[in-house]
Amino acid sequence: MNRFCFIVLALAAVSVSSLPAQDTCNLSEDLKKEIQGYQPIVNQIVESILNGQFKGDTHRSLADFTTKFGARLAGEKVLENSIDYLMSEFKTLGLHNSYTEEAVVPHWQRGQEKATLLSPRKKELPILGLGTTIGTPKGGLTADVVVVETFDELRSLPDEKVQGKIVVFAEQWMGTYGNTVAYRSGAGEAAKKGAIATLIRSVTQFSIASPHTGGQNYIRGVKKIPTACLSVEDALMLLRMYREGETITIHLEMEDYNFDDNISRNTIVELPGSLYKNTSVVVVSGHLDSWDVGFGAMDDAGGCWISWKAVEYLTKLGLAPKRTVRAILWTAEEEGYYGAISYRDNHKAQEKEEFNLFMESDTGTFDPIGLDFSGTPEAQCIFKEILSLMTPIGATEFKTPVGGGPDISVWTGRGFPGASLMNKNDKYFWFHHTQGDSMLVEDPDSLDRCTALFAATAYVVADLSIDLPKDVK
Amino acid sequence: MNRFCFIVLALAAVSVSSLPAQDTCNLSEDLKKEIQGYQPIVNQIVESILNGQFKGDTHRSLADFTTKFGARLAGEKVLENSIDYLMSEFKTLGLHNSYTEEAVVPHWQRGQEKATLLSPRKKELPILGLGTTIGTPKGGLTADVVVVETFDELRSLPDEKVQGKIVVFAEQWMGTYGNTVAYRSGAGEAAKKGAIATLIRSVTQFSIASPHTGGQNYIRGVKKIPTACLSVEDALMLLRMYREGETITIHLEMEDYNFDDNISRNTIVELPGSLYKNTSVVVVSGHLDSWDVGFGAMDDAGGCWISWKAVEYLTKLGLAPKRTVRAILWTAEEEGYYGAISYRDNHKAQEKEEFNLFMESDTGTFDPIGLDFSGTPEAQCIFKEILSLMTPIGATEFKTPVGGGPDISVWTGRGFPGASLMNKNDKYFWFHHTQGDSMLVEDPDSLDRCTALFAATAYVVADLSIDLPKDVK
Repeated sequence: MNRFCFIVLALAAVSVSSLPAQDTCNLSEDLKKEIQGYQPIVNQIVESILNGQFKGDTHRSLADFTTKFGARLAGEKVLENSIDYLMSEFKTLGLHNSYTEEAVVPHWQRGQEKATLLSPRKKELPILGLGTTIGTPKGGLTADVVVVETFDELRSLPDEKVQGKIVVFAEQWMGTYGNTVAYRSGAGEAAKKGAIATLIRSVTQFSIASPHTGGQNYIRGVKKIPTACLSVEDALMLLRMYREGETITIHLEMEDYNFDDNISRNTIVELPGSLYKNTSVVVVSGHLDSWDVGFGAMDDAGGCWISWKAVEYLTKLGLAPKRTVRAILWTAEEEGYYGAISYRDNHKAQEKEEFNLFMESDTGTFDPIGLDFSGTPEAQCIFKEILSLMTPIGATEFKTPVGGGPDISVWTGRGFPGASLMNKNDKYFWFHHTQGDSMLVEDPDSLDRCTALFAATAYVVADLSIDLPKDVK
Repeated sequence: MNRFCFIVLALAAVSVSSLPAQDTCNLSEDLKKEIQGYQPIVNQIVESILNGQFKGDTHRSLADFTTKFGARLAGEKVLENSIDYLMSEFKTLGLHNSYTEEAVVPHWQRGQEKATLLSPRKKELPILGLGTTIGTPKGGLTADVVVVETFDELRSLPDEKVQGKIVVFAEQWMGTYGNTVAYRSGAGEAAKKGAIATLIRSVTQFSIASPHTGGQNYIRGVKKIPTACLSVEDALMLLRMYREGETITIHLEMEDYNFDDNISRNTIVELPGSLYKNTSVVVVSGHLDSWDVGFGAMDDAGGCWISWKAVEYLTKLGLAPKRTVRAILWTAEEEGYYGAISYRDNHKAQEKEEFNLFMESDTGTFDPIGLDFSGTPEAQCIFKEILSLMTPIGATEFKTPVGGGPDISVWTGRGFPGASLMNKNDKYFWFHHTQGDSMLVEDPDSLDRCTALFAATAYVVADLSIDLPKDVK
C-alpha cells in the first residue's frame, strides 16, 4: 500500500455510520433465496481451502516466491523475472488462461545510502531513501541540522535559519498513518526555505530501529533535494539534542538515481465464465511490485496470492461460474498505481460492460474479518447478503465505503462496485516498507481463510443471476 | 543482561512453588508492628516520586544521559566518559558520597561488518558480530553454507559436509531466552567440524529485521572462527533456501578485534547510614556498560537510574536510615560480570559484615510488579512483610529465589540476601542487544514507580532494627 491510501483509509474511518441498516434492504425474497442457496457451494470451497486439498498451499507457495525473489521494485529486472516465473507457474498448474498486459512505469533505483551524525557525537544513522529521491552530490554533503516537529514549526522559522541546512522532521505519530504520512513528502516544504536535504522520522507507531521507505512527492517548481527516512529512535534522539541547544552536524551520502521510464506488466490469470467471458468480470487483485527492501510479502505479495490462488482453487474444484473471475496482479502500485491506471486506460472503451466487481487486498493478509464495499445502496444490500454466507470463515463483517483499496480506487472512485479485504492488521505499519516485511508476518491459517473469503465471494458474485447494480460516472 | 542470565531465569521459573506459605512465617508481633510502622514514610517517599517534586525526573535524566552517550561498551572510552559525566552530575546534585572503584575489563571492538548473500540471489544480510568474536581475514571470506536448526542436526552431519563452510544456525525460539541462547555460542561446535564461520539467528521471539548482538563463548582448545547474528527473517530465508536444495554462498567481512584488557570503574554513590556506615550496607544496582548498539537504555541504564535516583531522592528528602544505602553501577556486566567480580574480590575480607542486602534491576524498567528475593526462610518472611508496604506503588508481588540478577548472583549464589526488580517485561527480548534499545522503551510513569519501589524498599531495610538474617557459604 502506498502513500495515497491515507485518503481511502480516512474515508473508511467514518464508514460505520453509512452502513445500510438491515431494514433498509428490500431484496426480493427470490434473490435472497438464490443467494442463500449458495451456502453448500461456499461451504465446499471453504472446506477445501481450510481443511482439504488446498490447506496451507497459499502460504507454502507465497514463501517459495518471496524467498526466491525477495523485494520487487517496479522498473527493475527482478520484478519482471518474478512475473516470468509466475507465468510459468500458471502453466505448470494448468492455469492456461493467463497473460500479461504492459504498463509504463517509473524506474528509480536506490544506491548506497549513508547518514553519519558527526556532532555532538559520532553515530551511524540507518536511513532509507524515499522513492524517487535524488541522490546527493558525489562524496555527499555535510551540513548542520534544524529539527522540527511540524510543518507549522518549519514555516515559522526565518529562511536564513534553514538555508543550507538539513531539515529533520521529527513528527509525532498522529494516531493513524493517514494523519502522519504527509511528512514523508516534507522535502518540498523544506526546499522552499532553502534546505539542502531532509531526513524524516519513519511513518510508524512502533519501531525496533527500523527505517521505513515509501513514496514521496516533490513540489513542482521547487528544487528537488535528497530525502530519506530515519528510524524513530534516531529522530527522537536528534530532537532531544536540538531542544538541548546542541549544534548537530550530519554527513549524508545517497547514490539514489532516477532512470528513464521502463516497461512492466500487469499479470493476469482467470477462470473464464461459462456464460459471459469478457463482460461482467469479477476482478480479484493485489499488487506484485513492492518497495526494494525486505521481501514484499505483506505489501503486497499476500494480496496477490489470495487473489490468484482463489482462481486456481475454483478452477481445480471444477467450478464454472457464469462470469469470469479474473485475478490481476498490478504492477507499480507503490509509485502511484501505474499498473492500474494503465489497465483502466486500455480497457476504458468497454469498461461499463466489462467489469462487475473489483476486489482487492492491500492492507495485509492477517486474520480476515470481512470485506468493505463501495456501491449503490442496492448493491450494498446484495453484497451484505452474500457476506452472510461467509460464517464458516468467521469473516462476515460489512463496511462501506471501501477502504484500503488503492489500485481499485481508480474504478470505485467513479461508481464501480468494489470490495477490499478487512483483516486484523493493527500491526501493519510496524512492518510496512521495511526490511521486516517478510514471511514472519504471514500465518498459514490466516492466509487460507483470506483465500477462502476471496474465492467464495468472487464465485458467488460471478455466478449470480444478476449483475451488481452500478452507477458509473 | 548478558548470556549467563538464562540460568538465573530458569531458576525463577520454578519459583512459585518455593514461596514460604503465609502461615509458615512466625515473625514476632513486635517486628511486624515495626515494619508496618514504616507505612507513613514509605507513602511519603512514594508520593514525592510519583506525584511530587521528583515526578518524571528519572526519565528526563535518563534521556539526557542516553542521548549524550548512546551505547557504552566496556573497554571503550565512551563508557569512561559517561562515568566521568555521572561523577560530575553527582557533585552538582550535592551527592558528595560518590566514588569509583577500578576493575579490569575485556576490550573487544566491532569493526566494519558485512555479509552478502551471493547465491542463489544477491542480498545484503544485516549482521551484528557477537561479543569477543574474531574478525575475518582481511578482504573477508566467501564460502558455501550449511544451515541447521539444532546442534544435534549439526553433529549428525559428516565432517566433510561442514569443512570449509559457513554454518548458519536457524534455531527456533524455544519459548524462552534461556532455552535458546546456547545457540549464540554455536561457533565452537561448528568449528569442531571444520566450519570457517557461523551466522546465527538472533535470539528473540519477535523481529523487524533487527539483528541482536550478545555475548558468546568459544570452546577452549577449538579454533576460533568469526561469529555473528543474522536477523530472524534472513535466517528463515536461508533455511528455506537450504531445504529447497539451493547452493547458498555468502561473502562475510568482519573487522572485529580483541585488544588487551583495559581498566574501567564501578560507579558508586551512597547515602551514608546514620548509625552504621560500612557495615550492613543495602546495595541498589544496575550495570552502566551496554553492548555497542542502540542506546543501552533498557539494558541497563534504566536499572542504574532507578538505583542512583533512589539514593538521590532519599538524600534530598532528608531521610537518615541507620544503614548506608549504596548505589553501585557495575561495569562490564555484558562480557561476564567483570565489575561485580572485581568488587567482590576487593571487598571479600569483610563481606559478611559489610553487606546486608543486594538489590538489582537488569531485566528492564517497565511497569514494576514487585521483587523477587533470595534469602533464608526468615529473611523471606521479613522481606514479604516489607513488600506489603508497597501497595501505593501496586508492586507487592514476592517470589523466590531471585531471578534476573546476574551481577548480584556473585553474592546471592553464596547465601547473601538479594532482590531483583520484577516488571512487565514480556517484550524485553524484542529490543535486547539491538539498535532499538532506546528511550522509546522507557515510560516516565513506569520509571517513577520502579525508582519509588527501590527507594522505599532500600530505605526500610536500611533503617530496620535488625539485619536481614543470612546463611553465607
